[in-house]
Amino acid sequence: MSEVHRFEPSRAQLAYTFGGREPVLRVRPGDIIEMSTEDCFGGVVRGVDDLPSVVCEFPYLNPVTGPFHVEGAEPGDTLAVHFVEIMPARDWAVSSTFPHFGALTSTHATATLQPPLEERVWRYDVDVAAGVVRYHARRSDLTVELPLDPMHGTVGVAPGAFEARVTLVPDVHGGNMDTPELRAGVTVYFGVHVSGALFAIGDGHARQGHGEVTGVAVEAAMRTTVVVDVIKGASTPWPRLESDTVLMSTGSARPLEDAYRISQHDLVLWTAELTGLDELDAYQLLGQAGEAAVANVCDPNYTMVAKVAKSYLGGSAGYGGVHANLRAAAGQYLARR
Amino acid sequence: MSEVHRFEPSRAQLAYTFGGREPVLRVRPGDIIEMSTEDCFGGVVRGVDDLPSVVCEFPYLNPVTGPFHVEGAEPGDTLAVHFVEIMPARDWAVSSTFPHFGALTSTHATATLQPPLEERVWRYDVDVAAGVVRYHARRSDLTVELPLDPMHGTVGVAPGAFEARVTLVPDVHGGNMDTPELRAGVTVYFGVHVSGALFAIGDGHARQGHGEVTGVAVEAAMRTTVVVDVIKGASTPWPRLESDTVLMSTGSARPLEDAYRISQHDLVLWTAELTGLDELDAYQLLGQAGEAAVANVCDPNYTMVAKVAKSYLGGSAGYGGVHANLRAAAGQYLARR
Amino acid sequence: MSEVHRFEPSRAQLAYTFGGREPVLRVRPGDIIEMSTEDCFGGVVRGVDDLPSVVCEFPYLNPVTGPFHVEGAEPGDTLAVHFVEIMPARDWAVSSTFPHFGALTSTHATATLQPPLEERVWRYDVDVAAGVVRYHARRSDLTVELPLDPMHGTVGVAPGAFEARVTLVPDVHGGNMDTPELRAGVTVYFGVHVSGALFAIGDGHARQGHGEVTGVAVEAAMRTTVVVDVIKGASTPWPRLESDTVLMSTGSARPLEDAYRISQHDLVLWTAELTGLDELDAYQLLGQAGEAAVANVCDPNYTMVAKVAKSYLGGSAGYGGVHANLRAAAGQYLARR
Amino acid sequence: MSEVHRFEPSRAQLAYTFGGREPVLRVRPGDIIEMSTEDCFGGVVRGVDDLPSVVCEFPYLNPVTGPFHVEGAEPGDTLAVHFVEIMPARDWAVSSTFPHFGALTSTHATATLQPPLEERVWRYDVDVAAGVVRYHARRSDLTVELPLDPMHGTVGVAPGAFEARVTLVPDVHGGNMDTPELRAGVTVYFGVHVSGALFAIGDGHARQGHGEVTGVAVEAAMRTTVVVDVIKGASTPWPRLESDTVLMSTGSARPLEDAYRISQHDLVLWTAELTGLDELDAYQLLGQAGEAAVANVCDPNYTMVAKVAKSYLGGSAGYGGVHANLRAAAGQYLARR
Repeated sequence: MSEVHRFEPSRAQLAYTFGGREPVLRVRPGDIIEMSTEDCFGGVVRGVDDLPSVVCEFPYLNPVTGPFHVEGAEPGDTLAVHFVEIMPARDWAVSSTFPHFGALTSTHATATLQPPLEERVWRYDVDVAAGVVRYHARRSDLTVELPLDPMHGTVGVAPGAFEARVTLVPDVHGGNMDTPELRAGVTVYFGVHVSGALFAIGDGHARQGHGEVTGVAVEAAMRTTVVVDVIKGASTPWPRLESDTVLMSTGSARPLEDAYRISQHDLVLWTAELTGLDELDAYQLLGQAGEAAVANVCDPNYTMVAKVAKSYLGGSAGYGGVHANLRAAAGQYLARR
Repeated sequence: MSEVHRFEPSRAQLAYTFGGREPVLRVRPGDIIEMSTEDCFGGVVRGVDDLPSVVCEFPYLNPVTGPFHVEGAEPGDTLAVHFVEIMPARDWAVSSTFPHFGALTSTHATATLQPPLEERVWRYDVDVAAGVVRYHARRSDLTVELPLDPMHGTVGVAPGAFEARVTLVPDVHGGNMDTPELRAGVTVYFGVHVSGALFAIGDGHARQGHGEVTGVAVEAAMRTTVVVDVIKGASTPWPRLESDTVLMSTGSARPLEDAYRISQHDLVLWTAELTGLDELDAYQLLGQAGEAAVANVCDPNYTMVAKVAKSYLGGSAGYGGVHANLRAAAGQYLARR
Repeated sequence: MSEVHRFEPSRAQLAYTFGGREPVLRVRPGDIIEMSTEDCFGGVVRGVDDLPSVVCEFPYLNPVTGPFHVEGAEPGDTLAVHFVEIMPARDWAVSSTFPHFGALTSTHATATLQPPLEERVWRYDVDVAAGVVRYHARRSDLTVELPLDPMHGTVGVAPGAFEARVTLVPDVHGGNMDTPELRAGVTVYFGVHVSGALFAIGDGHARQGHGEVTGVAVEAAMRTTVVVDVIKGASTPWPRLESDTVLMSTGSARPLEDAYRISQHDLVLWTAELTGLDELDAYQLLGQAGEAAVANVCDPNYTMVAKVAKSYLGGSAGYGGVHANLRAAAGQYLARR
Repeated sequence: MSEVHRFEPSRAQLAYTFGGREPVLRVRPGDIIEMSTEDCFGGVVRGVDDLPSVVCEFPYLNPVTGPFHVEGAEPGDTLAVHFVEIMPARDWAVSSTFPHFGALTSTHATATLQPPLEERVWRYDVDVAAGVVRYHARRSDLTVELPLDPMHGTVGVAPGAFEARVTLVPDVHGGNMDTPELRAGVTVYFGVHVSGALFAIGDGHARQGHGEVTGVAVEAAMRTTVVVDVIKGASTPWPRLESDTVLMSTGSARPLEDAYRISQHDLVLWTAELTGLDELDAYQLLGQAGEAAVANVCDPNYTMVAKVAKSYLGGSAGYGGVHANLRAAAGQYLARR
């Protein structure tokens, strides 16, 4: 019988790495977890005068809620995390520039001798009822309403090889992938590297542009519900996503073409496996039917998402239909609530 | 009074560079040109046994129709080319792998010691009435219908600085950008580098996936109609596109993040100019409202497209409404025809 | 009074991460440590039939000796590690290709659909007396003598921000930089991230080409002696090296130009600090006087080294002459031995 | 009987592209050409108040002397250009920063929203007798003497495929490779793309740091003498260099690792051809014996040079000993003069 857990971390319980942490909760496949997550600034940037470089203290950035231990998840298995609901916890959210961070600035890696861009904060209204966030220009009067589209920038499992990675980094274990594709209704699959998988979630965005070009999205604390499952003996080389209509593979690397290569390569192999096509025939099909969604072009690794409609693959579902099962469980939970 | 021209090049009239060619036709702003274009293989790959590396002769690849001289277009101006119609000329199209070309293979630049991937050709059915192209696997029986979505991979003007560039290369002058955003109903803007602009068009695709991951789309000869205009004194640093609903900037470079940077940077500046936002406010707005469409990740330069809905910019149109005017002219032409 | 320590790790004591490990030894500034290090294969590749992918077990690759806790080293300080001696421990060494690793092959990041290169092992003779290593071709009879030039590919400290990183990765904390510049007579400086610094050393190479193009050098177990010091209150953003004649900054990143940028940028700032030049004057001087040594173009981050002769900087030494002091201490130790 | 030509271009005769130009002179294999070349600014930056962006007019930058037609050179052949002498023509030279150009600044490709670095000019003394150039800091009193080491940044042939490329770009045809390895005593080999090869030379540097990090070297007009030869039926995929002691391959691309890959890949194949090693054995040998010299990390393509000592290849010389022959011819010419 599946259980519903609730976990609301104290400030001291927030995690800043994937790996190297004890689990905050043990759950079983099929269980539901209702949790709260803080925004990437830990909630301390509350208005336009709260400059992140002043009010935040490195390395206490991008906190995640977790890690959660999933019973039965062992190295070589796949963990499925289905996002039932991602709901903004406040009626405001913030964004900013941040010195030497973002795509249109020099950074610590793309090092130049120029001074950094001005650090500036924008505070957005979050209007859940209207389904919008409201941008207010800082140097003029323009206000723009943009669709609310809640997502989590950061979700991952503990990495293998005894590693612990800061939550700002996306890699094989997931992490700070910052893809707007990761919204409610989507299942994320991770290869399991340590016993219990130890997944964690954070970095909610009320919405985000493609590539997170400024380095910071519309950052929002969230109330989020997931349901989990374990697929025994199924390997997942890079995080994959599945919605009702599409299959997605991710890749996180630099330069950006390598993130693209990894994601497309994984989707070719996944397509071949699901359809019985040989690799070259699958490559050709994706060459014409495939999409590429830009996730982030600002984090320590860039992230790209390869997508294909299931309808082009004869309706193939990943992992023998896990997504549909979790979707059904989510529906029952929402109906009961 | 605007004129309707028709130009169907003989094989000898096809061009293989932007720049270094005499114009095939002189037209005036407001004129309409009906033209035919060959596919990227010059039409010699007709079935699965026609291996491109055997039947094509370098450098006679990716022929373009043109160049067309537009009266009054001078360096410092902007040329607008509105695509009225892009119609497949045949009921078939082809795609292939090609040795050392594509994103999931080593190439002449990403040089490795591995042998190239197998060269294989796929022939697609093009069913204009049904609005589909039909993929047939080569090593199994799978057939997949994909939406017909005709576009031109290659469109550009003569480069400046006395250069001539092969049509396979995308750069500041346009060229082989290979973006599926370049479909009928869209206006493309180019900075003019030489007197008359000397634009040319080729490389029709019945459809294309994001990034053209195999290096080759569903390659099709086209019957294409454009209407042109010149915007005096308006500079355009990189090719821009405009549809009824979105503004787009392109960037072509390696690595892929630089193509992303160029396109997003141009769209920030364009947005600031159209809305009166300061640069940082425009950057923030695009950071949340902007999109990034992957064009090609296989050509000598990679191409990215930055997009933003005009509705988020208060309905701003580019270049004082040129697109709407050309759209109207296209409508009248289609109605008369 | 400085102490001489000896540490020869058992197999179980070898470390596979920087960070996340308890120190094996505590030393004080000025102390000397004589240690043994295993080769990158942990010594299990002993002949041409020992294929690494068969005889090695992931993640037990690239073991390091340490970590060593240096008393008084605190975050914000700089650790200096001077290499007194690096001596091959055996009369043989090995190299190999490794599937999906190296610069002239596709990799897990530069993912292609091609099969990997053949995995092949070469066993070298190490002739310390003659000062050479001897290459033997595998598919023909050619033998080539190359100068013995012992170095350590991997040396680093524990990273900050609660991270633990596999020893295969070079980054801000050092790690698998794989630069031939790191030979006996050289001092390496690291920013300290955790109390005690926790440095470790491994991955000896009897010699290495620029970029480690095959992914694997002439891998050798070593008997290595270092002397350490702590520079209180001096920050070091990226590992730096100093010999009697040159100052060097390192950068580790992808793409390779970012590794170049980081290293040159750091050397510009260091030069400005040592000479009193303003940044642009220092940039100009390095533009003409500076060198760039390619370290690795195969690891998860690539590493470049920026170099400048001290003679061009008026004989400036780094960190107030720490290198000369350690060099003198090394000389006394060697004389006494 | 070989002939000695002298060519001193008028300002109007200077060329700004490779390709698209009529030859200024026709020579035969074995002929010697004495020529003068202007500096990259066309000689108009003469002091610290001559800002390049003010006194230079795009695209009249980086002029080359030529092109020279070499009789008998046909597509598929190799042109050998041996540099007999490269002598500074003036007792001064200049360097500068240039807006959005250089490695430690944002550029038009690595586009950021930051303002450009300050544009500043440095004037160097060139003291041929003393064998030095003299740097003078602009914001303090430091003067530094650096060894004079004259070279040409730009040398190439006409590209194929009907292209014309600005002289600022390095690619398969050579061009603006900006490698300090291209000094007197060195032979450069180019694949021939058009009848007569049409080579040209410019962009003398009194010396240059690795990577030309500021984007501009110690720019000097030169009096340069070359002797040429044609190797019939020998193909050269990328420019190669040969000195008395080393063989070198070049690669020009972005990102920098691709320039490295191209150059190392070509040197592996060249080594295999000269030694009879199989490709993997040659790869291994270069992995330990090879060098990588950074040429430029600032031009539209970056350039890397792969090097190996001939002594490690059993004394192998390229192209059957052409370098030694040209070296001898150069010696006779110098003795006679």
